[in-house]
Amino acid sequence: MPDTLITLTTDFGTGSPYVAAMKGAILSINPMARLVDLCHEVPPQNVRHAAFFLASVVPYFPKETIHVVVVDPGVGSERALLYIEMAGQRLLAPDNGCWTSLELEGEPPRVLRLTESRFWRAKVSATFHGRDILAPIAGHLSLGLLPDFLGPPTNEWVRLEEKATTLLEEGINGEIVHVDRFGNLVSNVPEALLGQPERFRIWIGETEVVYWVRTYADADEGTLVALLSSIGTLEIAVVRGNAAQQLQVGIGALVMVRWNR
Amino acid sequence: MPDTLITLTTDFGTGSPYVAAMKGAILSINPMARLVDLCHEVPPQNVRHAAFFLASVVPYFPKETIHVVVVDPGVGSERALLYIEMAGQRLLAPDNGCWTSLELEGEPPRVLRLTESRFWRAKVSATFHGRDILAPIAGHLSLGLLPDFLGPPTNEWVRLEEKATTLLEEGINGEIVHVDRFGNLVSNVPEALLGQPERFRIWIGETEVVYWVRTYADADEGTLVALLSSIGTLEIAVVRGNAAQQLQVGIGALVMVRWNR
Amino acid sequence: MPDTLITLTTDFGTGSPYVAAMKGAILSINPMARLVDLCHEVPPQNVRHAAFFLASVVPYFPKETIHVVVVDPGVGSERALLYIEMAGQRLLAPDNGCWTSLELEGEPPRVLRLTESRFWRAKVSATFHGRDILAPIAGHLSLGLLPDFLGPPTNEWVRLEEKATTLLEEGINGEIVHVDRFGNLVSNVPEALLGQPERFRIWIGETEVVYWVRTYADADEGTLVALLSSIGTLEIAVVRGNAAQQLQVGIGALVMVRWNR
Repeated sequence: MPDTLITLTTDFGTGSPYVAAMKGAILSINPMARLVDLCHEVPPQNVRHAAFFLASVVPYFPKETIHVVVVDPGVGSERALLYIEMAGQRLLAPDNGCWTSLELEGEPPRVLRLTESRFWRAKVSATFHGRDILAPIAGHLSLGLLPDFLGPPTNEWVRLEEKATTLLEEGINGEIVHVDRFGNLVSNVPEALLGQPERFRIWIGETEVVYWVRTYADADEGTLVALLSSIGTLEIAVVRGNAAQQLQVGIGALVMVRWNR
Repeated sequence: MPDTLITLTTDFGTGSPYVAAMKGAILSINPMARLVDLCHEVPPQNVRHAAFFLASVVPYFPKETIHVVVVDPGVGSERALLYIEMAGQRLLAPDNGCWTSLELEGEPPRVLRLTESRFWRAKVSATFHGRDILAPIAGHLSLGLLPDFLGPPTNEWVRLEEKATTLLEEGINGEIVHVDRFGNLVSNVPEALLGQPERFRIWIGETEVVYWVRTYADADEGTLVALLSSIGTLEIAVVRGNAAQQLQVGIGALVMVRWNR
Repeated sequence: MPDTLITLTTDFGTGSPYVAAMKGAILSINPMARLVDLCHEVPPQNVRHAAFFLASVVPYFPKETIHVVVVDPGVGSERALLYIEMAGQRLLAPDNGCWTSLELEGEPPRVLRLTESRFWRAKVSATFHGRDILAPIAGHLSLGLLPDFLGPPTNEWVRLEEKATTLLEEGINGEIVHVDRFGNLVSNVPEALLGQPERFRIWIGETEVVYWVRTYADADEGTLVALLSSIGTLEIAVVRGNAAQQLQVGIGALVMVRWNR
């Protein structure tokens, strides 16, 4: 399948020569590969953000897509580079846990260590494995190379410590895991834990959020509301406003759900 | 035509997981669709900017291109979602008027309301119709689905109030509708109304613009000039400088054209 | 080859309507062309940055790729527009030297002046030759048009004065030519001039850089290090930190290499 989809997620910054060089390195192996930019604005070296991003996005792609992920604070160190096959998706990434929050579905992932240098660029920079190892491997895989040739299977990899919600007798403690461009605050508290809105009250920092709505349009402009985010978790927003600015909170802020008694 | 062009215009921000999820949602329906990023930097919920953007850009695309536009302050409300066919272009957008300034050519547009949920994602988020309704419909259309299946035709839609120029006996009042990255000030005063440069004088705010040039290179560095913009309207610029910064004006600023007597 | 790769490098800003209009202008000539965004964040009218960018990126692309480059402070003036064929790559760019640092390999480039207006858009804006001349020509070339039809060959073109390193008896003076998103400082001092790290000492401004490493991971967090950049030149970095901020230096800063005696 020379026209395989290859997505790119990096922390290089949109317009960085590093992104453009990776595109060239893939296309010089397979000029028919179909590149899809996912994000080059992962905050520098922020593996946790990359993990959140991939979990929100990768499941929407067709099976067999190849996702190249380069958020790599450990570049050039002894950290491994991995090929991962999971729920039909294929990823190429440093072994830093950026993909482990995707590891949800039944079947265990298939993971290989990328050790076979014959599929790399001839000269490998010690600071840019994205261009010199991951990009050419993506090119070769898109041409039909069997993953088995890339290196030995492994059962050990870095797992990112999950920012789990805490279940208390009186409710749930969660936190904000994403702030979007509108200032909406997306938490990690899943719909399944919440139940009906009559059942609970919500605080973010000192502020109680008293309106529960189905969507932004269900309350007046400027109202602070809680609702389900598009990824199925508790979200806090200001209708046609910016909740992050108004409340002066960001990623990591505590969200408290308390049961009504 | 599985390799149909599908463009994306949103206010999500470049690198947003929302953009990437939409790409996945399209490609999971039609992996051969050819995506083209137009803009993800529309100012948040700024339908007027989206309208200016689309009018500057859509006419350049080949016929049959599908343009998905997600600037959607009313998401989840009773506002409709539309399929629009006009001058050979196809658009999918919320019913907020973002496309009505394209409505220039002879033939009236063909507009349908998107009501047939069998072409949507199985679970529709109340806050993200771009991913769950418009993206999959774009995928199905690109595979050859006839628009008739999407929902009933309609003759009613929101029209964006045009920022028209005002024709006065003594000249024209217009305004700045776009500031580009170079600080050039693009107005809404069309070439056709201006006539020969000998005929008029131009003011922006308190400042008279005394040089009329064909292009930036026709005056010395630092000169404040007026010229025809690349979209065929009156533009005000500082040669190799930044007019917006120098004049401290932006979108909405008044531009006055006055006839010489 | 209707599915030829066409890359885009501009200073218009990501999300600019100018970028989107260029994409439309290419695709309206050849709807099958495969567009690759390289960079739209070249600092406004900064030809030198464009030259650095292209030199870091173009050599990675497959032969026959068409690179459209629009950083064009002289738009509308008498400056020529060029077709350049060099080391298997094809470029379309204003005659401002943005490509001359690529001119390294043995064979001399083949350069044509774009004078044949029949391949341009019917109406050419005096301020946007990227959309009205370069984009349609890229479209036609991608459909197989022979370059000979574009205009006459030329042996004269603008050469960008190289920021060469200065070789002194006591060492080398170079300068910072790129600051990446991590604050790493990439210089123009090539590996070949340096030799073994035992041989020299390095200063940037008043600060001596005392650690030479193979990669960032070879020193502790916060250490100021020197190493080889991914483009094969001397780089100065702070491990998991930001050298540009910490040292308060940027592009153009002096880097001194001095031989040990």
